Amino acid sequence: MKKSVGAKTILYPTPALLVGTYDEAGKPNVMTAAWGGICNSQPPCVYVSLRKATYSHHCILAQGGYTVNILPETYVRQVDYCGIASGREGDKFASAGLTPVPAERIHAPYVAEAAVVLECRLVQALELGLHTQFIGEVLDVKAEEEVLDAHGRVDIAKVRPIIFAPDTRTYYGLGAFLGPAFSIGKGLR
Amino acid sequence: MKKSVGAKTILYPTPALLVGTYDEAGKPNVMTAAWGGICNSQPPCVYVSLRKATYSHHCILAQGGYTVNILPETYVRQVDYCGIASGREGDKFASAGLTPVPAERIHAPYVAEAAVVLECRLVQALELGLHTQFIGEVLDVKAEEEVLDAHGRVDIAKVRPIIFAPDTRTYYGLGAFLGPAFSIGKGLR
Repeated sequence: MKKSVGAKTILYPTPALLVGTYDEAGKPNVMTAAWGGICNSQPPCVYVSLRKATYSHHCILAQGGYTVNILPETYVRQVDYCGIASGREGDKFASAGLTPVPAERIHAPYVAEAAVVLECRLVQALELGLHTQFIGEVLDVKAEEEVLDAHGRVDIAKVRPIIFAPDTRTYYGLGAFLGPAFSIGKGLR
Repeated sequence: MKKSVGAKTILYPTPALLVGTYDEAGKPNVMTAAWGGICNSQPPCVYVSLRKATYSHHCILAQGGYTVNILPETYVRQVDYCGIASGREGDKFASAGLTPVPAERIHAPYVAEAAVVLECRLVQALELGLHTQFIGEVLDVKAEEEVLDAHGRVDIAKVRPIIFAPDTRTYYGLGAFLGPAFSIGKGLR
């Protein structure tokens, strides 16, 4: 039996991403974003949605780009911290114990400790209400060699990404392999 | 050591959602979308990005709304099937063994077997290239009573959502609890 729980932002799974930017003074900043995902295949585009009140918001607009960083579950405390503290208060990279590295294709820092990094050029900033949706074209993806499989693909089971659940405000890890996509459903045809 | 893997659509985790629509004849249709997520908090908005070639694409534009359905991992074969077959070929609800139910707030069907259902009113259709991003305002969320926790919140550990990994094209389940958000990182302050 289904029960209405109201008009809420519930969608499972959501990611727990770190967004890397430089401010006007060139200081690297990093913040956590769970409102993010893939929104186009060609050209490859992702987005992160940030509140105007965040320090990173104007940095993305000023620099025209940002990085999306996927950290392994062993960094869940650092990822959570970057969603609590503000870049206005000081150097979040330093206080979180994370290391900024200049990206190659855009003017933004990435997180050295990330398993996967997306370098994104801002293509559109869409005002949706409380949040601005920053759509970015993915110019390059960098991954730690140890998270690649034998075919050079980024293996989620080696990345061990953090999964965020908005309604209960909890983090989870990745679970068991369920099957290959575009394949296990074929038997129903 | 990080290695460039090129400009690809990699972001972990991504969801494996079912999108419910009616066509002009009133036939219920359902398709799988992994390009989807939350993009605004107030008003609560989500999106799904669909290729123009899909049957569901024009249905969303014609009806002005869609449902987002989160199915438990036990339905991974049906979810995969709905990403392989096209609504042009027949009744996908029937061939997948899923049950359409009219939504209350919009003209679209939801999936009875879903653990969580979002009823979404189309607010914007954004052409990004291969995909159109359909931003929808969440007018209501419905959840099976058994996936609610003691506080009436939708418990991801009871929902058991399907996690999709784009690069390796594989599905995974939810893993272990890692900690409470906006909390476990406080010690780093």
